[in-house]
This record gives sequence, C-alpha cells and structure tokens, in this order.
Amino acid sequence: MSKKRILIVGGVAGGATCATRIRRLCEHCEIVIFEMGSYVSFANCGLPYFIGDVIVEEDKLLVATPALFKNRFNIQVCTDSEVTSIDRENKTIVVNDLLSGKNRVEHYDSLVLSTGAAAVWPDIEGVDLPGIYALRTIPDSRKIRAALDNIKHAVVMGAGYLGLELAENLKKRDIEVTLLQSSNQLMPTLDKEMASYVEKHIKQHGITCRLNSKVTSFQQNSDQTLNLNLANDQAITADAVMISVGVKPRAQLAEQADLEIGEHGGVRVNDHMQTSDENIWAVGDMVEVRHVITGEWHLFPLAGPANRQGRLAAAHIVGHEFAGASADMRYRGVQGTSVCGLFGLTVATTGVNEKQLKKAGYTDYEKVYLHPSNHVGYYPGAKPIHMKLLYDSKSGKVLGAQALGEAGVARRIDVISSYIQMNATVYDLEEAELCYAPQFGATKDPVNLAGMLAANHLRDNHPLARWEELMESHVQVVDTKDQNDADQLLALILDDPYQQAQIVDVRTVAEYDNKHIPNAINVPLDSLRERLDELSREREVWVVCGVGQRAYTATRILQQNGFRVKNLSGGMQTYHSYLE
Amino acid sequence: MSKKRILIVGGVAGGATCATRIRRLCEHCEIVIFEMGSYVSFANCGLPYFIGDVIVEEDKLLVATPALFKNRFNIQVCTDSEVTSIDRENKTIVVNDLLSGKNRVEHYDSLVLSTGAAAVWPDIEGVDLPGIYALRTIPDSRKIRAALDNIKHAVVMGAGYLGLELAENLKKRDIEVTLLQSSNQLMPTLDKEMASYVEKHIKQHGITCRLNSKVTSFQQNSDQTLNLNLANDQAITADAVMISVGVKPRAQLAEQADLEIGEHGGVRVNDHMQTSDENIWAVGDMVEVRHVITGEWHLFPLAGPANRQGRLAAAHIVGHEFAGASADMRYRGVQGTSVCGLFGLTVATTGVNEKQLKKAGYTDYEKVYLHPSNHVGYYPGAKPIHMKLLYDSKSGKVLGAQALGEAGVARRIDVISSYIQMNATVYDLEEAELCYAPQFGATKDPVNLAGMLAANHLRDNHPLARWEELMESHVQVVDTKDQNDADQLLALILDDPYQQAQIVDVRTVAEYDNKHIPNAINVPLDSLRERLDELSREREVWVVCGVGQRAYTATRILQQNGFRVKNLSGGMQTYHSYLE
Repeated sequence: MSKKRILIVGGVAGGATCATRIRRLCEHCEIVIFEMGSYVSFANCGLPYFIGDVIVEEDKLLVATPALFKNRFNIQVCTDSEVTSIDRENKTIVVNDLLSGKNRVEHYDSLVLSTGAAAVWPDIEGVDLPGIYALRTIPDSRKIRAALDNIKHAVVMGAGYLGLELAENLKKRDIEVTLLQSSNQLMPTLDKEMASYVEKHIKQHGITCRLNSKVTSFQQNSDQTLNLNLANDQAITADAVMISVGVKPRAQLAEQADLEIGEHGGVRVNDHMQTSDENIWAVGDMVEVRHVITGEWHLFPLAGPANRQGRLAAAHIVGHEFAGASADMRYRGVQGTSVCGLFGLTVATTGVNEKQLKKAGYTDYEKVYLHPSNHVGYYPGAKPIHMKLLYDSKSGKVLGAQALGEAGVARRIDVISSYIQMNATVYDLEEAELCYAPQFGATKDPVNLAGMLAANHLRDNHPLARWEELMESHVQVVDTKDQNDADQLLALILDDPYQQAQIVDVRTVAEYDNKHIPNAINVPLDSLRERLDELSREREVWVVCGVGQRAYTATRILQQNGFRVKNLSGGMQTYHSYLE
Repeated sequence: MSKKRILIVGGVAGGATCATRIRRLCEHCEIVIFEMGSYVSFANCGLPYFIGDVIVEEDKLLVATPALFKNRFNIQVCTDSEVTSIDRENKTIVVNDLLSGKNRVEHYDSLVLSTGAAAVWPDIEGVDLPGIYALRTIPDSRKIRAALDNIKHAVVMGAGYLGLELAENLKKRDIEVTLLQSSNQLMPTLDKEMASYVEKHIKQHGITCRLNSKVTSFQQNSDQTLNLNLANDQAITADAVMISVGVKPRAQLAEQADLEIGEHGGVRVNDHMQTSDENIWAVGDMVEVRHVITGEWHLFPLAGPANRQGRLAAAHIVGHEFAGASADMRYRGVQGTSVCGLFGLTVATTGVNEKQLKKAGYTDYEKVYLHPSNHVGYYPGAKPIHMKLLYDSKSGKVLGAQALGEAGVARRIDVISSYIQMNATVYDLEEAELCYAPQFGATKDPVNLAGMLAANHLRDNHPLARWEELMESHVQVVDTKDQNDADQLLALILDDPYQQAQIVDVRTVAEYDNKHIPNAINVPLDSLRERLDELSREREVWVVCGVGQRAYTATRILQQNGFRVKNLSGGMQTYHSYLE
C-alpha cells in the first residue's frame, strides 16, 4: 500500500475514533489530526458532571492526549489549529495556527471532517453579557466552575438532555435553579405525557420549571445580576444563565468547499460516511443521518453514533478487502437511542416518538402504556417503570419506546432498541427471553408485557381507547374527598361530556373514591360479571383501572358478552400523565 | 362457542398462566385447576430469599390465591388434589382428594399438564435422615426456616442457581456454609473459566467451596449433627444439608397415559405445546423444549419460558382465529437466558456455552473475552464486566454469551439474548445503538465491543490465539517479586514450553514485573514499533496485555509488519480465569 496521507479535521469523538481505527487498519499511512481547541478526545458528555463536582479531576475528562496518539498510534495531533479552507481540486487544506496566527497548506489523499456541532447562541438582546454561558468544552467548564461561588440562582435555558443535566448538577452545588423552556414540555425527545413524569420528578428535587417561557432580552443590573425579560412581561433575576437551547452542525468549512449540505444544515454523506467529494468523509454531529424508522434525514448529535461513524469511515478510507465488509460495514442510520439520569430517575428512549410519527404523517400506528415494576413485587425494593410503546398497527413493527423509572430503564430500552435494529415486531417482544430472577425482573419482563399488550391489541383481543379523545372533554380529576369539588362533580355529571363512551372504572371502591375520572362509574372487576346489566349496551364502554391490567381482563369479559368496549391503556397512571 | 371443559393439572407458573389466559380468550369455558399442593401460583423463585429473610412475609410469596382465581377469573381451584391417572379414550382423569382420600372422575374436553419438576433426591445411604432438606415448596421453606436457629454449619449439595442462592441466603443468616459440587466447577451453565470468577467471589464472602466432591453416605451423630462421608475418604460434619443437585420432570402421569416422552424424561410437545394426544397439552418444567441454537431437545426448568408456554397453549386450546396467530403464536424454543445474583455479583448467560458446542460437535465457532466497565471510567463508580462471546466463525452468527460483574450485567445479556432471538450476527452487535450517558455506558458499549472484537477477527484483522493451547503447557503465573520463584522461572525458561509461539507482553514494565506469563517477553506497546527487531519472525507471536485492547493494537502493528501474530483474547484477566 502506498503511503497515503490522511488528514482529520476535529479530534473529538468521531474524529479521534476514525484516526485510531485508520491506524489499526493501515500501519503505514500518515495520519494527522487538526483540532482548533487545545484538547483532543475529551469527554464532553462528562462536562455537566464536572460542573456538579461528581467528576472532580479535570484530567479524568481527557480520554486521550496528543502524546498517547503519537506514542501508541503514530498519529500526529495539531491542537490550536483551525482548518480554514479546503481546496478540493488540489486536495489541500489551509491550517491556521491559532497560537502563531500563521497559515500553512497541507496536502491530503483523504480528508475526514469531524468538526462537531456548536451551541446555538440565541439571537436575543444582551445574550453576550457576562454571566451567560454555554457548556461545550473544557475551557467552558472551567469558566463556569470558577464562577460557581458567586452564583446563588442560575437559569438554565433549554430543557433537553444537556439543560436537564446542567440543572441537576447546579442544584448539587446548592444553587437555586430555574429551568426555562420555550415549548410546552421538558425533554423534547419524549412525548408530552411522558415528559410530565420528568417535570414532576425534578420539581420534587427543587428545580423550578417554567414552560412556554421565551426570553426577549437580558439586562445586567448594578449588582452584577442578570434580568431575563420574558415574552409574558414577567422577569427573572439570576446570577448566571446557562444556554442549552440546542446545537447546530459546524458545517461552514464543508459549505465553503461546496460539499452537499442537507436541509437541516448538516453535511450529507452516503452509507460509507463519504461526502459528495469522493476524497472527503464526514462523521459525527456535523452530518445528517437517516432515521432508521422514518428514513428521513435528521441531525442526531449523539456520541455513540459519532464513534461508529468514525470507525466506518476509517474502513472505507483504507479500503481493505474485508471479508463481508461490503455487506456489513455500511452505516445503518440512527434511531435516537438515548438516556439521561436526573436525581435518581432514568429517562430513556429509542426509535420515534408520537410527535415525530404525526409530523411524518404516519397514521398506521398505535401505542400502549404500561407501568410494570423493574422486578417482581414480592422481592423488596421494586420500582415502577413508566413505558410507552409505539408500533405499526398493520405489521406490528416496533417503531419506538420511551421509559422512565428509578431502576432497570436503560436495560429495557436497550432491548427494544436491539429489536428495532433487527426490524422486529411486537410479536417478537412478546416472545423475548430475558434474564429473570426475583431481583432482576419478572417471568413476564416489562418488554414482554409491552409486546403482549400490543400483540393482544393487534389480535383484536385488546381494543384501545385514545386518551386524547377523553382529554378533549377538558375533564379534571375529581377528588371526592374534597368537599369543594362536590358542586363541580355534580355539574360535570349533568353535563356528561362523554357522548359516545361510558367510562367504567374497575378498581376497588376505595381506589375509585380516592380519585377517579369524572363521570366514570365504578364496577370493581371482581363483581363485573354479576353487574353487566348496569352497563349500557348502546354506548361504547371505555374501561379504566390502576395501570391497565385489570381493565384488560374487564375488556375481555365485556367483549365476549357483546359489549362494544375499549381499554384506556395504562390506567389512571397514564390519565394523570395526560392531565399534568 | 360450546361450553368447553378445560382441566389443568398443576397450578404454579405455566399452569396458572395458562388458566387465566384461557379465561381471557374464552369467557364461557369451564376451567378447573387441580393442584396437589396446598398453594397455587406461588413464587417458587423467591423461596431462597424467604430462607434468607430478604423476603420476610410468607404471604408475599402467594402471587394469586384460589379466591382470586374464583372471583376475578371464574376459575375453580382444587388444592390438595392429586391427579392419579388419565383415561385418554374417555377423556377423563381420576382426582384423589388428599384430605379425604377419596377418588373422583372428572371429564375434560382439553387437558393441560403442568406438573413441573421434582428435586432430584440422590440415591445415597442416609439421604432420608432428619436435617436433610430440599427446597421446592412453601412447606419446604417453613421447615427450613423453623430449623435455622439450630444450624451453625450447613452444607449445600449442588452449585447450580438454586444451590448458590441458598448458600448466599444461609450465609445471610450467619450460618457457616460449605458448598459441595461433584464436578470441577460451580454453576454448570457457565464455562469453567467464567465460573472461576464466581468461585473467587463467593469465597471472598465466606463460603467454603469444595469441588470434585462426591458424598458416599450420610450418618447421624449422637449430637444430632450429620456426617457427610466423601469419596476421597474425608468427612464433613454439619447441622443441616440442603440438596440442590437438580430437578427432573414430573412426567409419571403422562408416562402412564402413554404420551410421548423424550430422551431426557420430559414430555414431548409440538410448537403449540400439544402432546402426542391432540386433546392434551403440557407446559413448564415437565416438557422438553428445542434449544434455539442447537435445535436439540433439552430440559430447561425456567420460569419465564414456562409462563410463555402456558400462554401459547391457552391460545391453541381456545383455537381462536387470531390475526397472524398461525405465524406468530408458535413456541420458538428456549435459549437458556438466565441470571443469578450472589453477594452483589450478577452472573448471567444466554445461548450456548462452549461445553455445549463441544458436546454437540460444533467446530465452526470462535470466542472472544473482554472486560469492559459497565460505564465510562471517568464517571465515578465504574465496575468491570467479565464477558465471553461465542459465535459462528463462518457466518458470524451469535451463539451465546456469559457475563459477570457488579452492575449492568443483566442488561448486556438481555441485549445479546434479543439479538440471538433475531438470528443476528456479530456484525449486528458491532452496530447496536444502545443507551449512552456517562453513568449508563460508553460510546462503545460492552455489547458493541464484543461485536467489534469478533467482527475484527472474522475480517482477519484480529487473529485469535487459544488459551487452551497455552494452558496445556501447565504453566503457572510467576510472581517475580517472590524470590522463591526465581529457580522455577529459570527452569521454565530453559524448558521453553512454547515451541511454536513466542509470548509478547505489551503492558508496561511495572505491570509485567508484577505478574506475567512465564517466558513472556515484555515489549510495552508504545515502544513496539522501535523494537520489532527483537521479535522472532520464525515463530508465531502471541500478544498479551491487561484485557486484550493494547494487544489488539500490537497485533495489528505486527501483522502489518509481516509477523505471524495472534492475540490472547481478554489478556491477563482471562489468563487468571483459566489458571484458577
């Protein structure tokens, strides 16, 4: 093999992986990494935890140093080196040494772009005032750490993964935290009703959440505090503001070189991570990738995919004749598997959410909700997992899942992610053979249960009602223990918002009395067979219980007794998540 | 639908699930469960933890009561009722009421056998002495709990899952525990080198392990203690003995009725769980099932499969015309996914182990070892996971995996189990998209790493040496810090047991000096490129490091410099597991 010269622009995640993978595949290539920052291969996912002092030593964030690249991999690393242009015809780049200010030209045979993404810096008056930060790099984290002693109240703008992790870590430093989100829910990767659990949880841990809040301007006060003026004419005063309203691909270099750019502003690549120039590859947060489920182009700034993309690009660049490589070493797209830990709660998701399905105009889908424990209830310490599964209502193909809970959440989402990768159906989830012992799961694992609920639905044994239809009546939970609600209850009963459906609550009398859906009538499951005459055969019956299990049995009893019946999936647990 | 009469023999796990599933599918069938014990649907997997007082209240073990079956499911439960014979021609069974002693005849349209498995009671002199117990039922557990105060030292015979769980739980009660195993390893579902981690761990927690130990007789001493006389003429004295040497199908009833019985003594069923009589189904521990990987008949007394089998039998019995049921509702076989928790260590496995592959004469397989952390090292609290992955060396199909560690183990085995269910290859594991955040995993998850190691091997980038070949030279770890070993080391060097292979240890000098393989020469990875001339080009080079990662890079350097080279997968970590 001739001594190829391979240049890599950007030395974090995808770029670093690509470089070492090229070396492993090609001992005699020349490999040079250009990094505009002062560090390569640092752990940017760890930065919020460095702020929170969970990770105490900065050195721990340095996954690999230029010396390691040199000694172990014979890879030259140029830090503080910004690549400012690409000459595709002559296969050269211009490198600006940020320390000396001098430019030089470097030749390449193959070029890899891995310049990542930059924090979106909102176009708001005063956004450049001191005390307003974004967290993307080690120097950013140093600045924030240095300021911590003077921060009593911080506002985190943007409630995605980074914003939420920042909120948690600032709170750990005994800072009062207000989380501002412009949309109507936290964590946009979740559907709104699932995000309501996150909101409830972080509020319980002392975070103030303000949804639907847009900042119109920042002002500095004489005491160095900042005023955030909101669109609703309110204002918030804080000592610091963390901007985490998203990231955008750093694609300027590619754009200037006239490489194909996609509709979301990321570089377009084929399934070898090759750009529209056959000698240039691009990986990581700067590229657009196909969504495994929808097939649409997306931006997915995720570290795992970035690493695997770097690996694939390396294989293609070196062009070895791997056994089976042509079939296997192609990028399969991203399905958005991700996880976040927040004050002991794990939130994870894979595949598409319902919002994405609606946006894509995908109508043949259905969803089930469930609230199983992470392990059998008879073993001490069982914790609920709140799950939502989305699937194709014709083929049964699994489309996506969201889950939250204190234990066992990432495990179940990883399993469903794996099934999605293999193009599986809910019938496959139903038959999954998973680890079971009392402290680890159940004979019917949460994944099995999700599959069974969905498969029962597809086999017409488990007709599903839609919570949205119920909620459109704008009902409120009626707490009958509260005397003040008596009139309200009466008014609701007289009004009867469910013209088509009769709500039947099959929980015990005590459970019903505690809280129930207005106008729901109570027929406990164990007496249902004797009380069928009390139910209307004219109207559809929607059955509800605590989490959906008893209601499913009730649905089957009613269905086989000639009633038109549907189950309100996930029971009162899900009702509350819609209500909140 | 005519009112079918469905009788179910055995009301735990598979039988109970089958009964309630039949009811959900068929509201107007008559369903009767006959259970020879006094309890139905109890949590037998919880019994060891009831002994250990982890589960304190006996009531928690009762998943469902006869009253619940009656009130919720309109299912009649007859406890203390032993079914003694089946008249297949007249479709009747004889039921013996164990309380009154009276027999009666019951007619069925469909009959489900779910009589489970019985503890193997070894044919050893004195095995029926007081103080010798087996744990299968709630009454068994009561007897043991009642005796605990008088037990200072207990012997657990048999080191499968139940035996190990019992050992842990007795130890929790401050009882001295000796674990006896007739074979040369604990936990026979694992390969021997993986089981060595379990042995080391439970020894650290104060359990005495005696492998290769066969009891020839039991004797009662005058002080009520028991003597266990061993085949090697040694003896052990104990206050109690727990027999956990395995279970055997309770297939007598089926045998008497001349239903087809398999070579392992279990009832043979088709993929609808139907026996050789079209009106009789059988589920759970009493049936033989096909192994997903080998296709061979096996006994797999596992609770998860038993439950799913009960569900499938129910669907077939009721014979509804489910959408897609013909294709989807067939039993897929068992792949042996299982998990065990022992003093904070999780041990899990799925698919076949290497012993099974050898026994089946399957030669086209390969294996990789790895020792990744459950999450990135820079986030505090990372714990190693010791993994072994088996795969087909032609197709790359995943055959099995074993893993141990303190965190994240069940999650990785569940993921691999799911991939195996979908007939996946190591190339699929390589591309798996799994949950990543610093406290949950790594950008290359342990599952990815396992797939990458194997796929690299199949692409000829990662040739593998076999530890067995190395170990056949009967080498011992040489601790060069120990002066006494100097002569031994010299003798080994003069003898040079590696006729074909030169062992190159690419760790640091300090790591090498601490402990290394005899005769291994030390060339730290970072100086390897400069020291190639020191290595033999005549002999094969086998590279070793700490866990296999640096050795992989070294393998690539050497391979591309014309050496014949192989990696000792899993490094010194795996070396020690073979040695112990």
